[in-house]
Amino acid sequence: MPQVEVCLSPALLHLYNLNNTIVIIIDVFRATSTIAAALHNGAAAVWPVTSVAAAIALGNTLPNSITAGEREGKVAYGLQYGNSPLEYTPAFIANKNLVLTTTNGTKLLHMATEAHTILTASFLNVQATINYLQLQPQNVLIACAAWKDVYNLEDHLCAGAIVLGLQHTHTTNCDSARVGKTMYTAASNNLYTTLQDTAHYKRLSVYGLQADMAYCCNLNQHPVVVKYKGDKLAII
Amino acid sequence: MPQVEVCLSPALLHLYNLNNTIVIIIDVFRATSTIAAALHNGAAAVWPVTSVAAAIALGNTLPNSITAGEREGKVAYGLQYGNSPLEYTPAFIANKNLVLTTTNGTKLLHMATEAHTILTASFLNVQATINYLQLQPQNVLIACAAWKDVYNLEDHLCAGAIVLGLQHTHTTNCDSARVGKTMYTAASNNLYTTLQDTAHYKRLSVYGLQADMAYCCNLNQHPVVVKYKGDKLAII
Repeated sequence: MPQVEVCLSPALLHLYNLNNTIVIIIDVFRATSTIAAALHNGAAAVWPVTSVAAAIALGNTLPNSITAGEREGKVAYGLQYGNSPLEYTPAFIANKNLVLTTTNGTKLLHMATEAHTILTASFLNVQATINYLQLQPQNVLIACAAWKDVYNLEDHLCAGAIVLGLQHTHTTNCDSARVGKTMYTAASNNLYTTLQDTAHYKRLSVYGLQADMAYCCNLNQHPVVVKYKGDKLAII
Repeated sequence: MPQVEVCLSPALLHLYNLNNTIVIIIDVFRATSTIAAALHNGAAAVWPVTSVAAAIALGNTLPNSITAGEREGKVAYGLQYGNSPLEYTPAFIANKNLVLTTTNGTKLLHMATEAHTILTASFLNVQATINYLQLQPQNVLIACAAWKDVYNLEDHLCAGAIVLGLQHTHTTNCDSARVGKTMYTAASNNLYTTLQDTAHYKRLSVYGLQADMAYCCNLNQHPVVVKYKGDKLAII
């Protein structure tokens, strides 16, 4: 059986072997939730970039594209849209290229390029991701985006949901996988309530983003498998 | 109120502010457990050093000293004793200087020197440590030694025991503190059983160290407060 492990911060990624491994990047609040929503709602692709300047430059060259990203809870200066999954309705996003810059999630994408495959996941597409992983022979490393490298619960809970979903197809001897599974099992019926007592929820609440975060807790609302390939994210 | 936070790996310590902060170092299996046992059983002091060579050199200059440390579960070549709390009985260790080199715990001691105060803790002396911290005005950072920087559950559970003990005297907005407290609350009546399903337990079991690890789960067996000062650890 392949194994599954959980990395709790980008600052710990160097401790794991990425060769021949499927890396799942999780940034529940909100990058990987927004990515699942936009793609499920018909976006042609999501192009993750590391800076506002890179987003503007790419937006100027890609056809039918929009630029998006936030800094401190607001649309970043020079960009057009924010980082809310609620913004990307089918009527708005269908067939568009979404150029997205985020603080934590994008960084991991670029750190994990030696992996066999890179996926992104969130509660919105967790079961679809599990179903896909169950059929792959490679080891799995779930990489939590965290917040400026500081551990956060929402990403660990989502990682735990995947560990739970892989318990019959994958082995594990990783304490962060064990704890994520235990915590998710206890919280799965009360995800939003549980996540209201977290550092990032409190941080984003100051910007009035509660509705966004509640939406990010809707299990399997956007059942797509999202893969990073050729500088963009798209549905498998 | 002062705050309490939990750092899950030495590789994340740079994310936390150590100024005017009491840092509690935890390495349950087995360095900080052995330190609590040796000091409670009468050792004059424990001298933590980073290498076998440094242990030998210091052992040659310190009066009434013994050198100790393990590599891969065995007494390291050139040293006299191991890293088992069971070795340091009152009859053996009273009034001796214990020069100790360990893989994970010692490293953190030397990383945290800018802290206001450095303590070491384990399940063997957790309540004594809590009682002391409850009366201090400084913020608290609990630093898990982990294993070669990889997260482990035993240190996080012990950190959670301290967070729980400080819940009426300290504030927290730290997800790793929240999770540690939740996990400890669920496991406190079954510590040893819970910790048998961890990566480090399985690793050390290969060396036949189960009795050591069971001993490390005896809550408050050695109720001392251990402080690092002037290159040595001693009871406050």
